[in-house]
Amino acid sequence: MGAYIAVDWGTTNRRAYLIDAGGAVLDTVRDDRGVLAIERSEYPREVAALRERLGALPVIAAGMIGSTRGWVDAPYVPAPADLPALVAARADIPGEDVVIVPGVCLTGPRSDVMRGEEVQVLGAIAAGLAPADALFCQPGTHNKWVHTVGGRIVDVSTAMTGELFALLRGNGVLKGMLDGDVADGPAFRDGVARGAGATDLLVALFEVRAGVLLGALPADDAASFASGVLIGADVGSRNLSDRDVHLLASGPLADLYAAAIRLRGGRVVAVDNQAGFLAGIHAIWGLTR
Amino acid sequence: MGAYIAVDWGTTNRRAYLIDAGGAVLDTVRDDRGVLAIERSEYPREVAALRERLGALPVIAAGMIGSTRGWVDAPYVPAPADLPALVAARADIPGEDVVIVPGVCLTGPRSDVMRGEEVQVLGAIAAGLAPADALFCQPGTHNKWVHTVGGRIVDVSTAMTGELFALLRGNGVLKGMLDGDVADGPAFRDGVARGAGATDLLVALFEVRAGVLLGALPADDAASFASGVLIGADVGSRNLSDRDVHLLASGPLADLYAAAIRLRGGRVVAVDNQAGFLAGIHAIWGLTR
Repeated sequence: MGAYIAVDWGTTNRRAYLIDAGGAVLDTVRDDRGVLAIERSEYPREVAALRERLGALPVIAAGMIGSTRGWVDAPYVPAPADLPALVAARADIPGEDVVIVPGVCLTGPRSDVMRGEEVQVLGAIAAGLAPADALFCQPGTHNKWVHTVGGRIVDVSTAMTGELFALLRGNGVLKGMLDGDVADGPAFRDGVARGAGATDLLVALFEVRAGVLLGALPADDAASFASGVLIGADVGSRNLSDRDVHLLASGPLADLYAAAIRLRGGRVVAVDNQAGFLAGIHAIWGLTR
Repeated sequence: MGAYIAVDWGTTNRRAYLIDAGGAVLDTVRDDRGVLAIERSEYPREVAALRERLGALPVIAAGMIGSTRGWVDAPYVPAPADLPALVAARADIPGEDVVIVPGVCLTGPRSDVMRGEEVQVLGAIAAGLAPADALFCQPGTHNKWVHTVGGRIVDVSTAMTGELFALLRGNGVLKGMLDGDVADGPAFRDGVARGAGATDLLVALFEVRAGVLLGALPADDAASFASGVLIGADVGSRNLSDRDVHLLASGPLADLYAAAIRLRGGRVVAVDNQAGFLAGIHAIWGLTR
């Protein structure tokens, strides 16, 4: 019997889970009703539709639904942050029986923010999928590096790796050169070597164009090389030598990050990001009762 | 009396000069008939129209007109390259009395290319506006760093600085945050300090968004800070300490580069890029006779 509905409510996608009191998933709904597809006034109707489908139960939602573009603005919890801190700062929607989990921010010399990824990270630790002191890597349009100590998020770095690749593929002088498949291979690895630790990334990116024009870089390899430069710059900006990197992702992009992390001397520990999210939400559910 | 017509024929703009035998400019035409606005078959008509306006004279053209997107593909001259090497590799258009100056390429461990900027650099040296051993900086959509030794171009690095700023201003998560004026001031200088020498440029760019969201970066300062991060990354990737940098540009962008170069310990030597172009073309004209 379902106890509550958990929603991973992102920018473009949404995943809703019917969860029982023991934390088991009884049903799942995946669709493209992310926050960009929904007006603020439509959320009550959206939640009602989810309950129609999954049951008249409390809802716990995390991700961009708590941002200025979402339903309510749930202010970020400053790092260091753990699950009780997220619960303490949760937003309750009056009259809706909906809890929105806030994101985590870093203030001080550096500013950074996250929304949704913090549940995966803290959930993975809560579920024993990762140690309490760990480095996490969460590839996507933006890659998040998250450092935890004692089960608390102490540092976050967001790299615009995927967004930049998409922008360069669709616009400007590299347009038309990056349409090929990106795969781990010699071109990708050359790119990682070029990008890792580079202080001249802006120059490295133009080398894609120059290399193709001069025949030094086969056109079919350009996308893999460029992806390697960007992922190499991302992964190579930190010392991963002999270090466990908990990779909270799966699929082709995760494979590319895994290859780059290994090239930089890191050890890849794959962590199921959905399991992390569900464990985190279940712990939050327990803390709210 | 005009001796020839010199054309700086770029991607989006074109400048045509009527020059006398002594190298003096008698008339100038500036318009937006760059190579992107012209089909290959239209060049004879374009040149005829220039001659209608400036006189029935030989034409020497440099820039993107010699690229695969231009009139003819004038293959790049490999560095090290000087003016006689450009002249030896020129493309003559049969029956048109038009000479197209080739660009310069770098091959070997790094690939890079330039078209048009090489005439400014070598012309500036020929005219005594810069020494034969010099470092040049040519800001624009793409910034070119050019190193000359003994009056020959030995190294070229193209940084996609301006293109990336424009892409980030118009797309993605920074869209709407970078529409303010960019000016040299504390925010720009903070950006330069953040970007210079950074191996984590992809993270530094996201800090613009996080900083604005968290109130650490005033929204009005975001464009200047982001520009500073990118120009800082560009300028800061080389050791400029106590070094003369010959800045072949003028206007607001040149002012930003000058500020960044000085912050990084370099000495700015302003060089008139149009004077460089004209001196270079005049030397080429002399060598073709």
